[in-house]
Amino acid sequence: MEVGFIGLGAMGAGIAANLVRGGHRVKVWNRSPAPMDALAGQGATKAASPAEAAQAEILISMLADDAAVRQTILDGGVLRAPSPGVVHVNMATVSVETARDLARLHAEAGVGYVAAPVLGRPDVAAAGKLNILTAGPPDLIARVQPLLELMGSRIWRFGDRAEQANAAKLAANFMIASAIEAMAEAATLAEGHEVPTAAFLDMVTSTLFAAPVYKIYGEAIAQRRFEPPGFKLTLGLKDVRLALEAADRTHVPMPFASVLKDNFLDAVANGDGGRDWAALANVAARRAGRR
Amino acid sequence: MEVGFIGLGAMGAGIAANLVRGGHRVKVWNRSPAPMDALAGQGATKAASPAEAAQAEILISMLADDAAVRQTILDGGVLRAPSPGVVHVNMATVSVETARDLARLHAEAGVGYVAAPVLGRPDVAAAGKLNILTAGPPDLIARVQPLLELMGSRIWRFGDRAEQANAAKLAANFMIASAIEAMAEAATLAEGHEVPTAAFLDMVTSTLFAAPVYKIYGEAIAQRRFEPPGFKLTLGLKDVRLALEAADRTHVPMPFASVLKDNFLDAVANGDGGRDWAALANVAARRAGRR
Amino acid sequence: MEVGFIGLGAMGAGIAANLVRGGHRVKVWNRSPAPMDALAGQGATKAASPAEAAQAEILISMLADDAAVRQTILDGGVLRAPSPGVVHVNMATVSVETARDLARLHAEAGVGYVAAPVLGRPDVAAAGKLNILTAGPPDLIARVQPLLELMGSRIWRFGDRAEQANAAKLAANFMIASAIEAMAEAATLAEGHEVPTAAFLDMVTSTLFAAPVYKIYGEAIAQRRFEPPGFKLTLGLKDVRLALEAADRTHVPMPFASVLKDNFLDAVANGDGGRDWAALANVAARRAGRR
Amino acid sequence: MEVGFIGLGAMGAGIAANLVRGGHRVKVWNRSPAPMDALAGQGATKAASPAEAAQAEILISMLADDAAVRQTILDGGVLRAPSPGVVHVNMATVSVETARDLARLHAEAGVGYVAAPVLGRPDVAAAGKLNILTAGPPDLIARVQPLLELMGSRIWRFGDRAEQANAAKLAANFMIASAIEAMAEAATLAEGHEVPTAAFLDMVTSTLFAAPVYKIYGEAIAQRRFEPPGFKLTLGLKDVRLALEAADRTHVPMPFASVLKDNFLDAVANGDGGRDWAALANVAARRAGRR
Repeated sequence: MEVGFIGLGAMGAGIAANLVRGGHRVKVWNRSPAPMDALAGQGATKAASPAEAAQAEILISMLADDAAVRQTILDGGVLRAPSPGVVHVNMATVSVETARDLARLHAEAGVGYVAAPVLGRPDVAAAGKLNILTAGPPDLIARVQPLLELMGSRIWRFGDRAEQANAAKLAANFMIASAIEAMAEAATLAEGHEVPTAAFLDMVTSTLFAAPVYKIYGEAIAQRRFEPPGFKLTLGLKDVRLALEAADRTHVPMPFASVLKDNFLDAVANGDGGRDWAALANVAARRAGRR
Repeated sequence: MEVGFIGLGAMGAGIAANLVRGGHRVKVWNRSPAPMDALAGQGATKAASPAEAAQAEILISMLADDAAVRQTILDGGVLRAPSPGVVHVNMATVSVETARDLARLHAEAGVGYVAAPVLGRPDVAAAGKLNILTAGPPDLIARVQPLLELMGSRIWRFGDRAEQANAAKLAANFMIASAIEAMAEAATLAEGHEVPTAAFLDMVTSTLFAAPVYKIYGEAIAQRRFEPPGFKLTLGLKDVRLALEAADRTHVPMPFASVLKDNFLDAVANGDGGRDWAALANVAARRAGRR
Repeated sequence: MEVGFIGLGAMGAGIAANLVRGGHRVKVWNRSPAPMDALAGQGATKAASPAEAAQAEILISMLADDAAVRQTILDGGVLRAPSPGVVHVNMATVSVETARDLARLHAEAGVGYVAAPVLGRPDVAAAGKLNILTAGPPDLIARVQPLLELMGSRIWRFGDRAEQANAAKLAANFMIASAIEAMAEAATLAEGHEVPTAAFLDMVTSTLFAAPVYKIYGEAIAQRRFEPPGFKLTLGLKDVRLALEAADRTHVPMPFASVLKDNFLDAVANGDGGRDWAALANVAARRAGRR
Repeated sequence: MEVGFIGLGAMGAGIAANLVRGGHRVKVWNRSPAPMDALAGQGATKAASPAEAAQAEILISMLADDAAVRQTILDGGVLRAPSPGVVHVNMATVSVETARDLARLHAEAGVGYVAAPVLGRPDVAAAGKLNILTAGPPDLIARVQPLLELMGSRIWRFGDRAEQANAAKLAANFMIASAIEAMAEAATLAEGHEVPTAAFLDMVTSTLFAAPVYKIYGEAIAQRRFEPPGFKLTLGLKDVRLALEAADRTHVPMPFASVLKDNFLDAVANGDGGRDWAALANVAARRAGRR
């Protein structure tokens, strides 16, 4: 298929490479040129603008946040003179509100719109083993399914309205942040009784909580190793904010998410904003008088 | 070895049976007689009192809570005329304060004391596959190690003072309650955007959170199936209270635990105290105006 | 002075009448015509549009929220062809972000801008006894001071940037909501031990808490009288949201405000959104199993 | 009347002096002798033990906390050989649980029991202007009423069971702590936008919150003056703990109280335990990255 691909960050570059390897004609665009050159070296072609990348059967974008999506897609002219029948697959973690706006604006412009945020870090993206959370009109998802299968090991569906996938993604990220906070509080409690954090976290993450999220972040907390960031704490704060906003819209109280937001703010105010979001654990330690 | 065993509830009965099968001479005592008869049928002998059960090389107890331990062990005369060299292995989830008191009282009576609370439900206990969290004098733990290995697949050590194992156990239970709450809030958020709870929880518990705790409680929440209780909500409330008390003693703020206690109280006040502690999820739903 | 006045709701009507009585030539505009007729009966003249009202020495607006301000002032053309030297006094409780935007847009249009949100209900406004919280360029505040003194018994200054008055106002409203919540929780605790809510609240609001806010809301809570609303609960939710946003911008955790937002959402989800914000007390009662 | 008086701390000394001045025969006891000598100089007599002080028509005690009450009254033999018809008026702020235990133990010993905790600092006690919160059998309260009127400007009744006055007192103290926290958060929010704390707190405590509690603690916060302590932060923590326990007993969630406990623990862990409880405000400042 003719595929346009916008956004070649750590995640996007790996995903786009998989599409090239899968035999698709991929036209890439990125704000900075270096990643485009790298993809060109693997067989992609370069687009001169987001709008040119969108001249395709399918347009995929993997951008950082709401602002980047609005700027690149809307201001970038993607919806101005679309190819007939093009479908845009937006893989960014955006707010429910932006998802809703985008769905409406795409519909007005006659462009198909599917939300497909993902679970997985860059190495998982490069291996084509992401979990992809989709929502949108079923016929459109069916059309892009072959591409999704090159990117992910499992494709999940959450409804006919694009924003539903974003709500699910924000809820999942909230759960990760909750797991970090729960480990941080538990370890601080245990440490207060001279149970070493590493011993405690090794036990829980080998038994009841033997899941990837707990193992990865448990080890970071045990070793107080928060750099380089796999996912920056300020991005974690952003996603918790978006989860709270999505909940607020339908009047859902989320007391854990409220604690998380306060703790993320505390972390940023005290200098941990640029570290990995596992550094949330510093808040519990600092509040207990340990540094 | 000569083993006394006190407390033949759902957990204790399975554990004691494993010791009998392991070739030990086990003398059992239980407040109600039926479980004693059952164990006698498997080869144990019956003791007339806790104190008689304690006439052994090793005394193991598996009782419900602080009050049961104080009543059965202290009021039951176990420390009054102990066998020389006896070691008491207390497997109950008790408070850090009670653990400290018991260690002191045992030392005064010349009785060895080891804390060995466990992770695992009755079926795991019966299969001898518990995770056993131990703390106490290393030489005493070494002496009881062969028995522990009949009961559990893995024996963890958390320090020389008995209370340390209890702190670790309370911290672990706090993490389970946090996982339930996080799933409940996340599912309520998702549901607010018409993402079905079952679909959302299936996704997260198959991917990032593919751990036993999440699978068990995720399914209960998805199906709103909270009866019969595997672990009663009022017991969950008790353990969160004990975690908060253990944290308070060393001035550790635990905002997630505070939210949990408020929500468990809400659950009890609104009639869910006798259900499984996964019914904590009813609180999030009710507060969002859904029942 | 020539004064334009936009927004003749319960608050604005009383304020504008005071300016008329003070001898100023007041030109009023309101979205619905009836309040304009009423003011005209008292000596004001009617403007055909917000932009026409703005043809004055001083423009005062008292609108409901950010959206109303943006729509009426910006979309209403107030900044398009301003009178030379006109100063706009914005008395609405708007977000810090909107305040900042408005200050910038007014500066670009060559219009002076002063923020002057108030404390006080409609009867206080009608009596000219408001507390007025101002911020903006000192020379502009000095120019409008004579008008402010007709509206309020005390004029407070919080800085040179308009948004500072809005931050102070949001912080004050947060404190009122906190007082309501504190009374609600305290009364529910006391009632759990069969201390009647009315007796308890009468005591605290006659002694330590003998302040207007406590007396007014304490009586509403004691009598469970939440209708008609003096200030709607949904507006309280809005203001707590704005307080949290203002705090978030400078990384200030506000755990009480977070609890308040969750409880306001709970109240709205359970049907109390249209009642007075003292109905926040229903949340504490409901969560304790009392209705 | 023959009055025994136990506990001559900052509060008790002033109260006892008022009884002496009121013409009563007062026999005092205190753990350390100096305050007894001082009272003797004003006309009281000295008792050799708590039990001797209790040989009177009325016994009044004003002790620090649950432990002091249990030790002095129970271990001190007050209930062992009581004067016929003696009534014990306990003015301490104790837990609901201790209040219940004491009422039962007094009844068993044939001693009347009235709870009468107070609102007011030492200078108010010395002036005989306390607010006295009473509960207990009405006939007993009637008997001690003349004494209460020498100590307080207003006597409040909260029920027939002593513990009810203690529940009301704990609820009132919780409200004070909430007022401190609300001011701290509001001031930190305002300060984030460069509104000086002193200016903001001056405004709110002169207007909506013109109540003693807000004025006293608002000034302490504005000036960051937390020493010498009027009421130590560790005592504030203790009272919030007791409020939470009293609420827990009847399954009342108190999310504000939970935040307060976490923040008090944070304050103690970070070195403010010995300062005035207004130093709770340091927590909000520290968490916002300001010290």
